[in-house]
Amino acid sequence: MRLLSFSHQGRESFGVLSKDGNGIVDLRQIFPDVKDISDLLHQERLSEVEKFASAKVEYLDTSEVRFLRTIPKPGKIICIGVNYGGRNNEYKDTNESKNPSVFVRFPASLTGHLQPLIRPPESNQLDYEGEIVVVMGKGGRRISRDTARQHIAGLTLGNEGTIRDWVRHAKFNVTQGKNWENSGSMGPYLVTLDEIPDFDELVLTTRVNGKIRQSDTHANMAYPIDFLISYLSTFITLEPGDVIYTGTPTGAGARFDPPIWLEPGDIIEVEANAIGLLINSVEDE
Amino acid sequence: MRLLSFSHQGRESFGVLSKDGNGIVDLRQIFPDVKDISDLLHQERLSEVEKFASAKVEYLDTSEVRFLRTIPKPGKIICIGVNYGGRNNEYKDTNESKNPSVFVRFPASLTGHLQPLIRPPESNQLDYEGEIVVVMGKGGRRISRDTARQHIAGLTLGNEGTIRDWVRHAKFNVTQGKNWENSGSMGPYLVTLDEIPDFDELVLTTRVNGKIRQSDTHANMAYPIDFLISYLSTFITLEPGDVIYTGTPTGAGARFDPPIWLEPGDIIEVEANAIGLLINSVEDE
Repeated sequence: MRLLSFSHQGRESFGVLSKDGNGIVDLRQIFPDVKDISDLLHQERLSEVEKFASAKVEYLDTSEVRFLRTIPKPGKIICIGVNYGGRNNEYKDTNESKNPSVFVRFPASLTGHLQPLIRPPESNQLDYEGEIVVVMGKGGRRISRDTARQHIAGLTLGNEGTIRDWVRHAKFNVTQGKNWENSGSMGPYLVTLDEIPDFDELVLTTRVNGKIRQSDTHANMAYPIDFLISYLSTFITLEPGDVIYTGTPTGAGARFDPPIWLEPGDIIEVEANAIGLLINSVEDE
Repeated sequence: MRLLSFSHQGRESFGVLSKDGNGIVDLRQIFPDVKDISDLLHQERLSEVEKFASAKVEYLDTSEVRFLRTIPKPGKIICIGVNYGGRNNEYKDTNESKNPSVFVRFPASLTGHLQPLIRPPESNQLDYEGEIVVVMGKGGRRISRDTARQHIAGLTLGNEGTIRDWVRHAKFNVTQGKNWENSGSMGPYLVTLDEIPDFDELVLTTRVNGKIRQSDTHANMAYPIDFLISYLSTFITLEPGDVIYTGTPTGAGARFDPPIWLEPGDIIEVEANAIGLLINSVEDE
């Protein structure tokens, strides 16, 4: 199934794409006691959605709705720093740490599919970071790598957009550069795990104005998804609807010499097989 | 006014201390359409509480309730790294940055007044950090330093408890060491600003088993409260009920040689004039 959060005629809702491609089934009307996708996961009612994806009901066309970030109010948005670069190559040996960098984004820093990323007047260093995003389905503490997949509701895509000159505003943290309002995105769909192959078969690609800037595979992650769930749940309970941005491949704009920053009018596409295509433009605030 | 969040006979609520010292007025019963203190602030109804603090109603004794973290579900918990050390001394000149370190805690990492901090089996390096905590009353983006105080609902106290060997688990972030479940605390009361003097008159002290370990004044902060509100709201909208841990003075256990970690049975007191006294013990998980 492919679930989404959207607004339609000013009303916020959530829905599922119909199997026959006719459009979106408005689940808020079908589940009046469920507030949003997080609530659906908390109530353990994801499996009830399946039959409505093929029901004979009224559909909304995807062009009629405004996409919201897939999980409007995650309890946690946990982001992983440098990842990819190979589980088995020299990268890990020369890294000072055997653990991933972890930081946090607030929901308001992420907009939805087809909405513009906002470049603020305080900086011209808006940069993209294409990522695979995990949405937790079942909570837990000290989850083992072996059972991690059972705790995932599904995957979506993220652009972990960054204001580079605010990332190292102070030592030992990146919070400021990662939390500018509407500087990143999440979407378009939460794709449930039954539609996702072995994670190692996922290929993630980021394009800017049609040119490939990032491309890598889950098989090349330094910290694969099952490891991340086990590691993070060591210290904090993961809950349904929690979101993990799993880190970005090489090739962000900051890595060019000189760096190439995003500008108004640019189109950024983040794509992965089985998950979909997340598109955002750039606008000045 | 002094507001608190508590549970009583298994039911979660919020209340205000009565002016005559008789006990707690249960505000959930008086405001059935208000969920918690954050919701009270969002609904801009803080001023309605005043009259109930001196009403002739039934009181709960403070010994009858379990203190919860003062704001049970803050939208954001923003924490400031190294602070204090003087606005006007050499510290700032030698610092590589003119901006504060910023990181994030999740609510579950913070327990309430008189509850134990939990030392997990994965580490024996539990450490204290006494802090003044700001609770936002009125939201805003790009708030000026001049108007910052108008956006504050009040102050409370925090123990920004830390698992030290997980703070530098990876480069450039402290998230892991700052988010162990129930490793820190918030409370006991949200003291509204009308009871708080000029911030520079606040003196913050942390004691472990009765011995002073940290003591400093707001006047000595490198990044004072009005600056923090202005700085943070540059990139993200602050909302009612958001919480800012404003950083800790020197003297945490990690600064001793050799370091002195907290152990089961230790009692940590964080105190500030006009704000109150936050007490936590330590227990092994």
